[in-house]
Amino acid sequence: MTTYTTEIDVRFRDIDAMGHVNNAVYATYIEQARTAYFRDVLDADISRASTVLASLSLDFRRPVELVDGSVTVTVDVAEIGRSSTTMTHEVRTGDDIVAEAEATLVSLDPDSGEPAPIPDAYRSEMASYHDL
Amino acid sequence: MTTYTTEIDVRFRDIDAMGHVNNAVYATYIEQARTAYFRDVLDADISRASTVLASLSLDFRRPVELVDGSVTVTVDVAEIGRSSTTMTHEVRTGDDIVAEAEATLVSLDPDSGEPAPIPDAYRSEMASYHDL
Amino acid sequence: MTTYTTEIDVRFRDIDAMGHVNNAVYATYIEQARTAYFRDVLDADISRASTVLASLSLDFRRPVELVDGSVTVTVDVAEIGRSSTTMTHEVRTGDDIVAEAEATLVSLDPDSGEPAPIPDAYRSEMASYHDL
Amino acid sequence: MTTYTTEIDVRFRDIDAMGHVNNAVYATYIEQARTAYFRDVLDADISRASTVLASLSLDFRRPVELVDGSVTVTVDVAEIGRSSTTMTHEVRTGDDIVAEAEATLVSLDPDSGEPAPIPDAYRSEMASYHDL
Repeated sequence: MTTYTTEIDVRFRDIDAMGHVNNAVYATYIEQARTAYFRDVLDADISRASTVLASLSLDFRRPVELVDGSVTVTVDVAEIGRSSTTMTHEVRTGDDIVAEAEATLVSLDPDSGEPAPIPDAYRSEMASYHDL
Repeated sequence: MTTYTTEIDVRFRDIDAMGHVNNAVYATYIEQARTAYFRDVLDADISRASTVLASLSLDFRRPVELVDGSVTVTVDVAEIGRSSTTMTHEVRTGDDIVAEAEATLVSLDPDSGEPAPIPDAYRSEMASYHDL
Repeated sequence: MTTYTTEIDVRFRDIDAMGHVNNAVYATYIEQARTAYFRDVLDADISRASTVLASLSLDFRRPVELVDGSVTVTVDVAEIGRSSTTMTHEVRTGDDIVAEAEATLVSLDPDSGEPAPIPDAYRSEMASYHDL
Repeated sequence: MTTYTTEIDVRFRDIDAMGHVNNAVYATYIEQARTAYFRDVLDADISRASTVLASLSLDFRRPVELVDGSVTVTVDVAEIGRSSTTMTHEVRTGDDIVAEAEATLVSLDPDSGEPAPIPDAYRSEMASYHDL
């Protein structure tokens, strides 16, 4: 199974009063990896995709600091259902896993806003990329 | 069981390109409720508390928009262990639940950075406030 | 001349590694005051107004901390031109001015994206509110 | 005169409800360029430097979108005084200048918090790098 990976620079603004990357910023890192995945794997602009985040869980293993410079974030597809996709993520600095995450995306009918089948193009691109 | 509740104003900056409060901002809303809870219930400044967030899970029910004006966020204590506390949260606009969350906090020894017993003062304030 | 004033809660996430409200967050506070001004004075949703920020200058007087709790932000209209409006702002904690700002907004033709006359409704509401 | 330049990736979270990089995020981009400049030119961690931002002015030329992918931000030193340094910045996408900025930093005595002479090491590194 192929894992998609992207690198994200840590910004000064990502750091909070404790001197570490703030917990909410991990959600932004995951979102940024998803954005890059949509662009690179699905050939889609996530801003225009009719997809919403239904759930997100984050496990924090160890803090990230400004001097770490950047993190890498992985994207794997754990499950593809009719209208929902579950992605799993690792956030790493060097070889260390600093956080793990799972996100469930739901495809929506752009007119009704109701769950709709995942577009065939996305489904086949994900299956092809990850050897599902 | 008493539930702690705080109100948080929705900012223009909280809205993303989809026209809704961005998913990472929910983590900020939960953090802000936790900050208010530390101040109001534990009589503590969360910036100085030796407590870290170990995990956070978010379930998104429906989008929040700028015109919603504000959200209310609840804080309940689901479980108090030796060094960890599990809090549950609802994010509401009016009477609608727009998201649910669960957060696990871990108390650390400020010197070693290792998990440490929850301070007795916090433990008794939580038990007293929530009738645990 | 009447000054419009709004109160904004300081969030934990607004604080940076130095322990103070981050400089970029002042731009967010000013934007939030502008958003409230559009809603309360111009009876408009700033997300739908065809108005862009052309410039912003900020002078920082003293740091704001989490324990300050909230800031108040003022909105005054210094100048109304054909297509541009210059607003001045004070950010205060209690009676202390912690920052001053000046922002220039430009009305755009929603079709061409070129500068366009300020809508008459906005012009008259501003003149009426501020006794211009 | 040598200009320092750094590249910053545009994140999905940087985009606001108008579909463009939010105005406050330009302050974050400038701060990030300053952070990189402190690291690369002054060999300093800006989080530990006793330097504060006294003022910031931003002129917005044209919007930046997610598809722009990244911006480059320049750092020039316009003036070095006794305790304050004025930096000028351009934000570019490709060859287009999308914003210009000027920032004034002030060195503080870490004990008194009062303005203090710019450290000699910084002064000589800046003079050397920019041929001042």
